[in-house]
Amino acid sequence: MAGNSFGQLFRITTFGESHGGAVGVVLDGCPPGIEITEEEIQKQLDRRRPGQSKITTPRKEADRIKILSGYFEGKTTGTPMLLIAYNEEYESDDYLELKEAYRPSHADFTYEAKYGFRDWRGSGRASARETLARVAAAAVAQKYLKEKLGIEILSYVDQVGDIKADIDFNTVTPEQIESNIIRCPDQSAAEKMIALVEKVKAEGDSIGGVIQGVIRNVPAGLGEPVFDKIPADLAKAMMSINAVKGFEIGSGFAGVSQRGSEHNDPFEIRDGEIRTKTNNAGGTYGGISSGETIHFRVAFKPVSTIKKEQDTVNRKKEAVKLSAAGRHDPCVLPRAVPIVDAMSALVIMDHYLRNKAQNG
Amino acid sequence: MAGNSFGQLFRITTFGESHGGAVGVVLDGCPPGIEITEEEIQKQLDRRRPGQSKITTPRKEADRIKILSGYFEGKTTGTPMLLIAYNEEYESDDYLELKEAYRPSHADFTYEAKYGFRDWRGSGRASARETLARVAAAAVAQKYLKEKLGIEILSYVDQVGDIKADIDFNTVTPEQIESNIIRCPDQSAAEKMIALVEKVKAEGDSIGGVIQGVIRNVPAGLGEPVFDKIPADLAKAMMSINAVKGFEIGSGFAGVSQRGSEHNDPFEIRDGEIRTKTNNAGGTYGGISSGETIHFRVAFKPVSTIKKEQDTVNRKKEAVKLSAAGRHDPCVLPRAVPIVDAMSALVIMDHYLRNKAQNG
Amino acid sequence: MAGNSFGQLFRITTFGESHGGAVGVVLDGCPPGIEITEEEIQKQLDRRRPGQSKITTPRKEADRIKILSGYFEGKTTGTPMLLIAYNEEYESDDYLELKEAYRPSHADFTYEAKYGFRDWRGSGRASARETLARVAAAAVAQKYLKEKLGIEILSYVDQVGDIKADIDFNTVTPEQIESNIIRCPDQSAAEKMIALVEKVKAEGDSIGGVIQGVIRNVPAGLGEPVFDKIPADLAKAMMSINAVKGFEIGSGFAGVSQRGSEHNDPFEIRDGEIRTKTNNAGGTYGGISSGETIHFRVAFKPVSTIKKEQDTVNRKKEAVKLSAAGRHDPCVLPRAVPIVDAMSALVIMDHYLRNKAQNG
Amino acid sequence: MAGNSFGQLFRITTFGESHGGAVGVVLDGCPPGIEITEEEIQKQLDRRRPGQSKITTPRKEADRIKILSGYFEGKTTGTPMLLIAYNEEYESDDYLELKEAYRPSHADFTYEAKYGFRDWRGSGRASARETLARVAAAAVAQKYLKEKLGIEILSYVDQVGDIKADIDFNTVTPEQIESNIIRCPDQSAAEKMIALVEKVKAEGDSIGGVIQGVIRNVPAGLGEPVFDKIPADLAKAMMSINAVKGFEIGSGFAGVSQRGSEHNDPFEIRDGEIRTKTNNAGGTYGGISSGETIHFRVAFKPVSTIKKEQDTVNRKKEAVKLSAAGRHDPCVLPRAVPIVDAMSALVIMDHYLRNKAQNG
Repeated sequence: MAGNSFGQLFRITTFGESHGGAVGVVLDGCPPGIEITEEEIQKQLDRRRPGQSKITTPRKEADRIKILSGYFEGKTTGTPMLLIAYNEEYESDDYLELKEAYRPSHADFTYEAKYGFRDWRGSGRASARETLARVAAAAVAQKYLKEKLGIEILSYVDQVGDIKADIDFNTVTPEQIESNIIRCPDQSAAEKMIALVEKVKAEGDSIGGVIQGVIRNVPAGLGEPVFDKIPADLAKAMMSINAVKGFEIGSGFAGVSQRGSEHNDPFEIRDGEIRTKTNNAGGTYGGISSGETIHFRVAFKPVSTIKKEQDTVNRKKEAVKLSAAGRHDPCVLPRAVPIVDAMSALVIMDHYLRNKAQNG
Repeated sequence: MAGNSFGQLFRITTFGESHGGAVGVVLDGCPPGIEITEEEIQKQLDRRRPGQSKITTPRKEADRIKILSGYFEGKTTGTPMLLIAYNEEYESDDYLELKEAYRPSHADFTYEAKYGFRDWRGSGRASARETLARVAAAAVAQKYLKEKLGIEILSYVDQVGDIKADIDFNTVTPEQIESNIIRCPDQSAAEKMIALVEKVKAEGDSIGGVIQGVIRNVPAGLGEPVFDKIPADLAKAMMSINAVKGFEIGSGFAGVSQRGSEHNDPFEIRDGEIRTKTNNAGGTYGGISSGETIHFRVAFKPVSTIKKEQDTVNRKKEAVKLSAAGRHDPCVLPRAVPIVDAMSALVIMDHYLRNKAQNG
Repeated sequence: MAGNSFGQLFRITTFGESHGGAVGVVLDGCPPGIEITEEEIQKQLDRRRPGQSKITTPRKEADRIKILSGYFEGKTTGTPMLLIAYNEEYESDDYLELKEAYRPSHADFTYEAKYGFRDWRGSGRASARETLARVAAAAVAQKYLKEKLGIEILSYVDQVGDIKADIDFNTVTPEQIESNIIRCPDQSAAEKMIALVEKVKAEGDSIGGVIQGVIRNVPAGLGEPVFDKIPADLAKAMMSINAVKGFEIGSGFAGVSQRGSEHNDPFEIRDGEIRTKTNNAGGTYGGISSGETIHFRVAFKPVSTIKKEQDTVNRKKEAVKLSAAGRHDPCVLPRAVPIVDAMSALVIMDHYLRNKAQNG
Repeated sequence: MAGNSFGQLFRITTFGESHGGAVGVVLDGCPPGIEITEEEIQKQLDRRRPGQSKITTPRKEADRIKILSGYFEGKTTGTPMLLIAYNEEYESDDYLELKEAYRPSHADFTYEAKYGFRDWRGSGRASARETLARVAAAAVAQKYLKEKLGIEILSYVDQVGDIKADIDFNTVTPEQIESNIIRCPDQSAAEKMIALVEKVKAEGDSIGGVIQGVIRNVPAGLGEPVFDKIPADLAKAMMSINAVKGFEIGSGFAGVSQRGSEHNDPFEIRDGEIRTKTNNAGGTYGGISSGETIHFRVAFKPVSTIKKEQDTVNRKKEAVKLSAAGRHDPCVLPRAVPIVDAMSALVIMDHYLRNKAQNG
């Protein structure tokens, strides 16, 4: 109820602050018997980890995940899994400046308005470090979805600043996505994006972008009317990621200018199956999966932490100036790709179990 | 769990199909003592009602709302309210064609994939008629939010097809919105929009658009980390409305091209209060309200029901042709405005109660 | 969240007051395709109905149930079912005395303490009339459990006042239970119970008793660790029925005096299956069903409404005297039998679906 | 949904097996600003700890609790708290016998029926070790309830085997309860109980008993109609504790023999307040607190683990004999007292927050 849980049946509850003892997640409702290792989970976390390339924050966080419950002889047991990553030592003094000042576009002010006081070491609970817990729990779902159901989840950077990639989401592969440090499978665009991020970094600034999400081979029939539609739950999932400001599925905002006769996806028989000729809907009708690929786009604003000096105020309502100490991501997009994958997996896994309960 | 409920503490569960006995809602968790009449609820419903102008569907549905429980001597009692609108008589034969054929971009096929069979009279549970239940329940929330907390909720049509309005959301009034049948406060744009809708209607086609949502005077501190952020819950709420394909808050998709130094909202002291100079965030930081206006945009695709003949298939996997009998909305935007208002009210009311429980 | 819902996946939300417009329930999460008629549901309601015999209240309430949604061509559709019974006309003046006075051991005082005011016509939301909604929704579950899974649910009156029946719950049949008006299959005890109830009624008083609940053929493996154990959910279900003051499963309170070596149920192989020799546990270990019969007992206090004059106070904190107008049940036990059945069915159905989601 | 969470707003999710890496709890929804230390939490845990006296299991488990999140500068922050106790080293070989055999009246068989396989080291997730997590989280609630609201929660051993104590629950103090190792404030009965437990222990057997629960100074108005009544939620809470077979509130099972005119609690004016002369209800009417003391009784069966040899079967459906290695509790009652307190605190805290949300 206090907002730290996601999913109804495949349900995660995350905990932890950027500078407390640990960050992690309890996963309840996981099917028993899924074979998975800490290493497989770690592999997803490493895609999200700081310090993985020259265009991410140089912070070095090991983010080693441990499984402390719900796991026996290499398999999930069906009881709650605790996945935990301990925080490393830090110098509290590094953050003293933040004790009083509210960083622009950060949650310092709003958390304090809500709770009366705040953990001022780093971003506390509002830190994007929390998303490692989501990635860890989702790794279990991804394994199940892929191996038991053949569902493939991937995402990639489609735009950084004004640079747009040209990619067919129907054919893109995980290998193509991982082939460069910005995680954009259009190599030519990727080079320009990397150059832009380096420029922005040199300026002590940050830049936003768009991630394209793709979910293939979802069986028809997942999703619940009328509130828990797949697009609604994906939207919530993605909008809950730090720095996300927009979500669109299928034709999205561009589709508003179309006529119904253009936009509608005619049914046809293909390979003996009922399919659609086009997929402007993005893979669902009435919020329920059609069997076509689910495809959507997620807009990330430029990150708020920048090296450039900024005007702000402090708790005493005095005007002050702030500039970040420096270890920030000039562009979160490459590290956000596994987080988008994670949220897709959590949504689909949850809806798979929900549909099984009622209609399986 | 089966998707027909929304909200945690101010919780609605809707029921009803387009051609069953009734459509309505049970509202549980409503504060006691709210003075409201059936007429006040009806007023919101009338803004959503079919047949209200030449550019909406000519279907005549009375949509009379009745309060059957949780209400005594003109006030809410705190126990569950049943709000119900009985369906009118219809000729089942009108829908016989739909018994076999799957309408393009409708939920006929996906509901059948999910449940094994479907109520083929109209759109069944997937009908937008369900949204009257949301509007009815939200009318109670809107009254409370406005009178007890001074929170103002409104929305308007910002775009139809390629025609964009030019409106300052900070100053727009409910009266301006209601001043024309398309519900666009930019009169010049409104005229062009109406002309476009009439043209599309004459062609037997449909057209999409964008609604701008505005929520003013929300106190700082509403919203829950880390999943139940205000933007995440608004996104889910809006994406659960029929025909919605996109949601963006604050700078949204446009913001991805900005630098952090441009996009960040500097804090300042204004009238002795901590405020922000700009509001690119759209009224929240870390998902928690800042006290600034919450503003967002919702993309509606062109409605799927069109008069023009379309190719599709039927349950026997045969190719067939379909054309709607005629009584459809060429553009849902004007009727969707009160639904966007309703979903905003449900989200804010729920978060108000949740915050009160933990931090009040 | 406001307490009017029960079940996680087979989820009911009831509404209605004794003297509002209607009493009913929305059932969400019902599997599609269950063939059931209004008459079959009515049959369960008729067992709960006032005025069914000389030992129940002479109030005549028709309690006709209507299905208004989630139902098509004789089958459940999987979308929310609205089951509703309209209230009949009444004379508000009959209740004027209750507008000010708090009836002893009724909820008048506590509802007013909670909500600030109350619907004083009858017992409002606290009326046992609400339980008809539970019985209606549970009739759908009972049909499914019996026909699809072979699970048999029944209960009977085991004690009234000090009169205890002597019955083997393993062999008792529904026909035996329905063979007399007190619903006690021990005919000799039943006669004494009926005589006692008539005596109590003549005195203008009331009397309590115990209902024995029995659930047969539950497959092993239902129930969730560690909070949502079958005994825990049954206890909650039964304790939520008006007038219930105690619940025990298996050996219950009597078992506390036993040694572990007596109380433990040894496993054995019977007909090639793993079974237990005894069933002191009452059908579950660790809260999860063992495949043995679930058996439990529910204690009902004497109903609070009595004809005898009683001392009490009113809203002005004045001492007053009250005596019920007369149409009350001297003993709720016979009418409570179908309510115990209903709650058993709701618990088992919900756990069946939950187990299917994770382990099915 | 998978049963490992309790509470709606003050919500705990526990995790951990007896022989995994750790046992603990995530507490979400905790009000911010509660001053509490690890030592205060530990104090409650020490009352539950094995090895605390000659009549509890001689197992030595340190059960050191750590707070790893949601906590800053000695206060709760309002974000999720992780409370964790790491498990100590053990010899897996000690449990090899249990790999194949199903212990009588343990959950070995039912867990395996549910999940397909089980963690056979000790009792896995079904271990009563899980309850330390409940006690830890509840310590936070107990502090808040006592200091902010003046609500006092206590419980004591009222019966062991056939030995019943004679205690007035209205006047008993925490000091009296802690004055002997069986936690029974009737010193004479306590001595007999201790002697009985020692005798049972010497026989390699176990014995059950009854704990009386008491909650004082609960304000009138807590509890939700119609399912989430205080007695219903207390019943569920208590029945979710290992070895509990029965729950009764107020007059309980004894009250069934009374007449309504005896059982009803007449209202009166006392010290200018509306109070009841008697309290047969046990502190609630219609499931909502009346302001009178909430009092209830919880029946514990004799624990299943005994030294005496027992007949059972193994996974291969062979008859085998088993006897516990020895380190078991002959009577869980003294160690269960803080668990009953904990569950009371969790129920009342949750209802306090729920009532505040809607009616505060």
